[in-house]
Amino acid sequence: MIKIAVDAAGGDYAPHEMVKGALKAVQEFGVEVVLVGRQNVLRKLAEKSPVMDGISIVDATQVIDFNEHPMKALQQKPDSSIVVGIELLRNGEVDAFVSAGNTGAVVGSALLTLGKLNGVGRPAIGAFIAPIPTRPALLVDAGANADCRPEHLLEFARLGSVYSKNILDIESPRVRLLSNGFEEGKGNRLAQETFPLLKSAADINFVGNIEGHDIVKGAADVIVTDGFTGNIVLKLIEGYSDDFLTSVRQIGRVFTSASNQQGRKLLRDIGLNAWTQRMDYTEYGGASLLGVNGNVIIAHGRSQARAIMNAIGLARDTIERGIMEKFREEHYEQTSRD
Amino acid sequence: MIKIAVDAAGGDYAPHEMVKGALKAVQEFGVEVVLVGRQNVLRKLAEKSPVMDGISIVDATQVIDFNEHPMKALQQKPDSSIVVGIELLRNGEVDAFVSAGNTGAVVGSALLTLGKLNGVGRPAIGAFIAPIPTRPALLVDAGANADCRPEHLLEFARLGSVYSKNILDIESPRVRLLSNGFEEGKGNRLAQETFPLLKSAADINFVGNIEGHDIVKGAADVIVTDGFTGNIVLKLIEGYSDDFLTSVRQIGRVFTSASNQQGRKLLRDIGLNAWTQRMDYTEYGGASLLGVNGNVIIAHGRSQARAIMNAIGLARDTIERGIMEKFREEHYEQTSRD
Repeated sequence: MIKIAVDAAGGDYAPHEMVKGALKAVQEFGVEVVLVGRQNVLRKLAEKSPVMDGISIVDATQVIDFNEHPMKALQQKPDSSIVVGIELLRNGEVDAFVSAGNTGAVVGSALLTLGKLNGVGRPAIGAFIAPIPTRPALLVDAGANADCRPEHLLEFARLGSVYSKNILDIESPRVRLLSNGFEEGKGNRLAQETFPLLKSAADINFVGNIEGHDIVKGAADVIVTDGFTGNIVLKLIEGYSDDFLTSVRQIGRVFTSASNQQGRKLLRDIGLNAWTQRMDYTEYGGASLLGVNGNVIIAHGRSQARAIMNAIGLARDTIERGIMEKFREEHYEQTSRD
Repeated sequence: MIKIAVDAAGGDYAPHEMVKGALKAVQEFGVEVVLVGRQNVLRKLAEKSPVMDGISIVDATQVIDFNEHPMKALQQKPDSSIVVGIELLRNGEVDAFVSAGNTGAVVGSALLTLGKLNGVGRPAIGAFIAPIPTRPALLVDAGANADCRPEHLLEFARLGSVYSKNILDIESPRVRLLSNGFEEGKGNRLAQETFPLLKSAADINFVGNIEGHDIVKGAADVIVTDGFTGNIVLKLIEGYSDDFLTSVRQIGRVFTSASNQQGRKLLRDIGLNAWTQRMDYTEYGGASLLGVNGNVIIAHGRSQARAIMNAIGLARDTIERGIMEKFREEHYEQTSRD
């Protein structure tokens, strides 16, 4: 049975929402979840629930805060939920690790403990954004590498293509390079130098640049950029989402009240449900750390139970679809960590 | 009387919407407008209108397309509407120039013909985005300089502060640096190196970094970034805007129909009007080219009459508030063009 470790100590709503999300995922997806965090606290929280089958607990006494320096924190806190969770994955005791904790610490710990896939220089975060509700696009790098060189962006394109192809069954994912203009030759130096590399790469389906306004229009399956720009784009989308959903949910509540049949029809007609779904990043639950030797899902720091459940769902998909094996078939191989 | 030249040949909806926008602006703001473009065509279009007082025409036989290489086009097309319009401004025949044409060509022509304000290394585009409906934030650079050094970003902060202070009457505009993290030390190399420069500059009110999700939350009056990232952010906001407004206008129409009083109240209660206004970039009409020696307003390529009218309105405000004089008082002085 699929076994997924969840960082129960990381994230704004830890540990309560992590435990709730894990319980939901056990029921929904039929996976086993290992909660990693302070044993006493987690035991009490889990005991309140009628579902305990499929849930186990591994003690981790330390917590890495979101504002701690990642590498320092990893050294100073060997018994943190992040370090312990990644070690469970390295030792084969679980098939994936999900964390809403300090992203830098998760990435750092994965690099140190799991190592990179052979041939990969810079692992990257691949995050789904939802340009059209039926087919999300993968933004890579969404935040792991602030400064990049062109060859890194080529690598992100390759990692993103293999991932997108296998997790979403897209035959030949359309790769686009984020830039400040559509035409070849537009861009900052990084984008200008990356364009020819993507164009001449035989193993990806590069279809050109993409501008900011087309991000929301479904013109790409994989959007390649450096982790600085990617992080800003992802968070800007989330910012709109938060704010917009607050308004729309109010409309939704009035519209969908039992007495308002006309309202429900209107809501359907104008596609506002689709809009709500599209703006709601908790639908996607998590981003994947691509290029490390193990399934690591990074959830949003503000994740509540539903987002954690969905992140666990993404981890399950990643395992069931054998993403790690697909990466290795595509000429990436496991490196030793020496 | 204030006299504003409008590029009647540049933009997706030229010349019809430019003429319509100019006519509206003459009525609305009581300014004189000089339409720059093909004389015969413009005369016919303008003649259809009852308002001709306040409108004049200057012939320019060539058009620079949006996908032409800016510097080549400027050399090859000395009688283009952009070159002719900027020359009118240089010669003091008009007080400002508004164009929805090729942005690179407008920036290039302004640099070559008007020159930079003394002390300015890199003029930048300052574009208003609308985090909260009552108080827009200025994004600078929104696209003039794809690759920047830290000292350029410091300059953008200064230009943006003076502009924001005088155009919006903000006493001490809060300047923030766009980054992938809130804390000092976060960012790509450019942002990391810019932070201490902004922090130690006595003439700006630097209040720290801003992340993507806070762009929409009104946490800054001036948001500083390089022109590559700025362009992507601006266009992403516009992309959402376009798509979102289509949905919301449908709701709005039903809600505000005469028979639906409850609907109108609801619309007001949930602040959807404010949302619509905030998402609608035509409200702002144009961006200002900051740091050149003359009032140049860059309108969106897809501007229709209302957006052009608002861009002319922004030009009028810029003139009436003596922005150019304020820049010079703040230790920028006119350079010779030799």
